Amino acid sequence: MPVSLNASDKDFTARFNAMVKAKRDAEADVSTVVAQIIADVRKRGDAALHELNAKFDHVDSATLGLRISQSEIDTAATQVDPQTLAALETAAARIRDFHARQRPSDDFYTDAQGVKLGHRWTPLDAVGLYVPGGKAAYPSSVLMNALPAVVAGVRRVVVTLPTPNGELNPLVMAALKLAGVTEVYRVGGAQAVAALAYGTDSIPAVDKITGPGNSFVVTAKRLVFGHVGIDNPAGPSEILVVADNKNDPAWIAADLLSQAEHDEVAQSVLITDDAAFAEKVGAAVRQQLSTMPRSNIATPSWEKFGALITVGQLSDAAPLVDAIAPEHLELAIDDPQALANKVRHAGAIFLGRHTPEAIGDYVAGPNHVLPTAGAARFASGLNLLDFMKRTTLVQCDEASLQKIGPAAVALANAEGLQGHALSVSIRLPRGAV
Amino acid sequence: MPVSLNASDKDFTARFNAMVKAKRDAEADVSTVVAQIIADVRKRGDAALHELNAKFDHVDSATLGLRISQSEIDTAATQVDPQTLAALETAAARIRDFHARQRPSDDFYTDAQGVKLGHRWTPLDAVGLYVPGGKAAYPSSVLMNALPAVVAGVRRVVVTLPTPNGELNPLVMAALKLAGVTEVYRVGGAQAVAALAYGTDSIPAVDKITGPGNSFVVTAKRLVFGHVGIDNPAGPSEILVVADNKNDPAWIAADLLSQAEHDEVAQSVLITDDAAFAEKVGAAVRQQLSTMPRSNIATPSWEKFGALITVGQLSDAAPLVDAIAPEHLELAIDDPQALANKVRHAGAIFLGRHTPEAIGDYVAGPNHVLPTAGAARFASGLNLLDFMKRTTLVQCDEASLQKIGPAAVALANAEGLQGHALSVSIRLPRGAV
Repeated sequence: MPVSLNASDKDFTARFNAMVKAKRDAEADVSTVVAQIIADVRKRGDAALHELNAKFDHVDSATLGLRISQSEIDTAATQVDPQTLAALETAAARIRDFHARQRPSDDFYTDAQGVKLGHRWTPLDAVGLYVPGGKAAYPSSVLMNALPAVVAGVRRVVVTLPTPNGELNPLVMAALKLAGVTEVYRVGGAQAVAALAYGTDSIPAVDKITGPGNSFVVTAKRLVFGHVGIDNPAGPSEILVVADNKNDPAWIAADLLSQAEHDEVAQSVLITDDAAFAEKVGAAVRQQLSTMPRSNIATPSWEKFGALITVGQLSDAAPLVDAIAPEHLELAIDDPQALANKVRHAGAIFLGRHTPEAIGDYVAGPNHVLPTAGAARFASGLNLLDFMKRTTLVQCDEASLQKIGPAAVALANAEGLQGHALSVSIRLPRGAV
Repeated sequence: MPVSLNASDKDFTARFNAMVKAKRDAEADVSTVVAQIIADVRKRGDAALHELNAKFDHVDSATLGLRISQSEIDTAATQVDPQTLAALETAAARIRDFHARQRPSDDFYTDAQGVKLGHRWTPLDAVGLYVPGGKAAYPSSVLMNALPAVVAGVRRVVVTLPTPNGELNPLVMAALKLAGVTEVYRVGGAQAVAALAYGTDSIPAVDKITGPGNSFVVTAKRLVFGHVGIDNPAGPSEILVVADNKNDPAWIAADLLSQAEHDEVAQSVLITDDAAFAEKVGAAVRQQLSTMPRSNIATPSWEKFGALITVGQLSDAAPLVDAIAPEHLELAIDDPQALANKVRHAGAIFLGRHTPEAIGDYVAGPNHVLPTAGAARFASGLNLLDFMKRTTLVQCDEASLQKIGPAAVALANAEGLQGHALSVSIRLPRGAV
């Protein structure tokens, strides 16, 4: 049974806090195995990749080559039906447009002391996108990870993906074509992350690795972090819907189940101001679960991690939202902007009754790679800045150095760094400090 | 002896690449010990902190309390002389001004399909700044870490620092006062990171941890990453100076040594277009090393990791700079902007003959917390955005959902996520998909 809470209950705070703190992500500790795989790839390069490909995916990449050729990509992509292809094109265009607006500004100015200073943004040279195999190979994720890098101006956008039994996923290949990605390698797991981070004869190293993956992939990314950049670790999906009783319970139930169907440890939570409406949504969920194709996944998710929470008034929802810091926040209420303005922590907010979260998974435009498990307290969804970096600039002339230099000399000496002090004072007139 | 390379040498590329790849950071693997400390702090909270404080710092925090009182801070800060305090004030004002210009813009617009969308930035609620003890307790680092958080609007800026034998560093206390930080705890090492990440009775948890530290602190930050945010791992400092023969060799030598004095594994590199000038700088370095106070640190750094590189012409320096991706790049040449425009990777660039790198360590304004060890390929120096996060916003109405909804339904069905599809199609007119 999903949790059912009412803010007027005596034990509400304790039960709510227990729900927020419950760990849904029982990730296996595979760090020893992963460290061995990384060491093996660093030592033996392509040979290690071929061996692991043969073992895990039954793929003879030593013969086929690690690089997936453009003709292989093209051939697989032709299997996608025109309607789906058109939908992918719609998604790609909207994602491009949204991310293009995020281009940051450079700044270079002269301050009152005559110092010129500022910063500039440049794209990364090369990024690697990990695309999972099997059931989690989503073309929408390919677009969401690759397009911000492309829009940022990254020269090399590289994709690695496992190809179990040598099969290519046509939808993924079509998404790669739409995103303009041409450098694609058949290799998955921790070995793909190792190859991207350290390079092999066939796979030149990249500067940053993004994209979802299983515990081996996530652990490998953690271990190579620092040598290359990585994105934020992503946990199971979650949705928090704030809805009043003017909604159709079936709509809200569908929204809750759209996350529950992702993963048995996904979490779907409703906050409403009407206990009777909460019950109606619960009933609608049960009804939809009885017919939905992925009921085998959505049912345990809802039973174990679902929650129906009733509060005195909708504005009481704001602190509860912040405590959860949800990946997805849906506000199906009369004045969603007013409540959104009271909320501080959420990865993405979906405003109003006609904005189901799933619209953001595909075609709205904003990225669907979002902070999970409360990380919205400190992290942002994937965006253009993840594929760029900032360099600061300073230029003093003789006059401006004379103005600000003496303070630097004083601080360097106070810190016991006389070499620092000398590098400034040597440029100042005698007697200036 | 420092490396001396000339681009006209046959083995130049091999020797240059060897220099770039040389690992300067022999960090001990302390992850087992650190994991135990974190587990202990999570389990026993304040009691564990008191025990470790007594053991390592000979501080009785059980009696004193973990919180350092405002009167303790004030009393220690009064020991700072007026000239140093004025210099700290100059630094603080300039750092504030520079970071205030970085405030990002929100965006909310209506697109051609009638979808309203955009993003907004909000500050983090609480960040913890780790301040090292002993020789590495630099007031400038306190300002560089704390002020961007304060300017971003972070409500709780918390500092932890070790107090060996109970002593407070007056300069650090003065810097904390200038930054407006009032929540300060006496605890260092991995236990401080654990307390900040998970909270204890005395130290409420924060959302992100920044600041430099030894291998225990760095390892602890890695281990708590994901539960809280962390900054980029920082390695030993490094400077790359590009200089022509119109410079005074003594000035350039001083700049090289200003980094060498940081750490025995710091790295200082000169690139010039005149082999004779390189020799003069080498001689000036030897001369300055013979008199500088921190010669015991700067000499092994220069001997082991220093390099003098001669290229055919200054524009040849650009690809070498990018290969190194230096933390600090100084361009002491006639047209520094022209070369800066050719460089892609550097943490901070210092333009012209009157801009020694050390000016940026203290008073220029840009942050001195910068990516090291080649991380400038993918990372930025600390800035305002490190203390803020972005939430995306989407709002459809009935009409706009009808326009973009069918593509979402098509993609959800193609991915086998019929629950996603239903949450959109249930809001569309019958027959729309």
